[in-house]
Amino acid sequence: MRLVTYEIEHKKGLGVISRDGEWIYPLRSLDMDYKTMQELIEGISESEKQLLEYASGQDPYKVKGAVPMKEALLLAPIPHPVQDVICLGINYMAHAEESARYKKEAFGGERPFAVYFSKRVNRATGTGEEIPGHRDLVQDLDYEAELAVIIGKEAKNVPAAEVRNYIFGYTVINDVSARTLQTHHKQWYFGKSLDGFLPMGPCITTAEELPYPPRLSIQSRVNGQLRQDSNTECMIFDIDHIVSELSAGMTLKAGTIISTGTPAGVGMGFDPPRFLNPGDIVECSIEGIGTLVNRVSES
Amino acid sequence: MRLVTYEIEHKKGLGVISRDGEWIYPLRSLDMDYKTMQELIEGISESEKQLLEYASGQDPYKVKGAVPMKEALLLAPIPHPVQDVICLGINYMAHAEESARYKKEAFGGERPFAVYFSKRVNRATGTGEEIPGHRDLVQDLDYEAELAVIIGKEAKNVPAAEVRNYIFGYTVINDVSARTLQTHHKQWYFGKSLDGFLPMGPCITTAEELPYPPRLSIQSRVNGQLRQDSNTECMIFDIDHIVSELSAGMTLKAGTIISTGTPAGVGMGFDPPRFLNPGDIVECSIEGIGTLVNRVSES
Repeated sequence: MRLVTYEIEHKKGLGVISRDGEWIYPLRSLDMDYKTMQELIEGISESEKQLLEYASGQDPYKVKGAVPMKEALLLAPIPHPVQDVICLGINYMAHAEESARYKKEAFGGERPFAVYFSKRVNRATGTGEEIPGHRDLVQDLDYEAELAVIIGKEAKNVPAAEVRNYIFGYTVINDVSARTLQTHHKQWYFGKSLDGFLPMGPCITTAEELPYPPRLSIQSRVNGQLRQDSNTECMIFDIDHIVSELSAGMTLKAGTIISTGTPAGVGMGFDPPRFLNPGDIVECSIEGIGTLVNRVSES
Repeated sequence: MRLVTYEIEHKKGLGVISRDGEWIYPLRSLDMDYKTMQELIEGISESEKQLLEYASGQDPYKVKGAVPMKEALLLAPIPHPVQDVICLGINYMAHAEESARYKKEAFGGERPFAVYFSKRVNRATGTGEEIPGHRDLVQDLDYEAELAVIIGKEAKNVPAAEVRNYIFGYTVINDVSARTLQTHHKQWYFGKSLDGFLPMGPCITTAEELPYPPRLSIQSRVNGQLRQDSNTECMIFDIDHIVSELSAGMTLKAGTIISTGTPAGVGMGFDPPRFLNPGDIVECSIEGIGTLVNRVSES
């Protein structure tokens, strides 16, 4: 099933999307009182999951308060992540090559270990919202379509073979990056963490809905033009490896978001680079989850 | 004044330390109902600050429920930071030199810009608590005494000259680091973010109590032996620069913790390196704040 955080008539709610994608069925009308997606992830039971799954297959006239998808404003599924988002750097081979071509001293060299960094999030940006361009600070705004994993229960010392049992679901993240800030400051944190640099959505697809490990086509488009086009099975370090390695030292709480890196085709990968301009429309799509659409602001 | 989060008879509380350092005056008995330090930072008024300052100068028999310092268990002043701690890398010149000597490819090179990274914190470690050694994962555990700045109100686009008005106070942080994990993964995040790697305390000294910019002696000792010995005025990028630069792109909310980097004398700075061993006692001291003491666990 696919879960959303949405707003209608200035009220926020959680909902499950009908199988045809046309409706949102509010969790409130299914007698589930979770106020936020974070609370839901921490608290949902197996029987509640089954109820939601069942409800998503119903006709809209059978579900009290069904909201037509077109009338709702989708927010980021987790608008206020409780901790910074954990990100993988350089986790697709062709992207490793394009990055090293762009700036060898920042992205080149041997890399036998996964690269982890974090992205601060004051508020995640929903589909349809603008990405702030920060034009006074940023001349090389870039996009990165990524599959994000959402941890469902506290993960500590999880063996690779058991990682799949700790995954609540998946969403699409655009790991928006300011390339000069990212590389000037050596550590990538600041250039990845400006306000509005975490578009997320349109929904969370729960784990049981997708193959494991996820073999999903992943794409990005700028103004309709295909830029990235790969498959999540091409990750260098897979989800089993990532969660197992991190959880060996760092307890991952329910609701932790791990963004698994981006394939080739980002702006800095072109010669000359194709960075984002004011007014550009960026679409990031992953099979089985959906498309996250954001326009770059004029200022 | 100096503020603490403490526990007595299994109850948590907030308190102000008496000027002689012998007593904690509970905020509850001064009719302030803040439940956490985060709430206090977000909500405290100027008149409440004055009341606390006044109370801290009173004799203990005049303050209802005064707790002898010796009977209280001090916790980290902010046990659960709402976001990852922002850290400065290589922000004292002599530490830049010792780090480059230790591993040139990871720490050497020109560095005209500040290095920012983040440190995940599930729970900050209080003074007196153990630092987990993670012996199965870490062979080169290191200490870094640092002055941490705590932001008092939302900071966005703050000019350098106004930064001082945004500072709530200061505390001591030990930026515990696993050197191999830090450097193998290129980005430092993972090797800095293991469970228990953020000892903080013993208190928050509020901004008006200290000179600005802070000119405070900073030291660390391992098993009583002096290791780091410098002054916070020797930072390469000062607090005005840091907060002004970060807030130009990233809104810093009240309660944001920024750790300003460590001076020379960390374990990897010695030849041969002097990393921490099980049972070692690490003390990090800053003038006007106090000493943070932690023992490295046996396992």
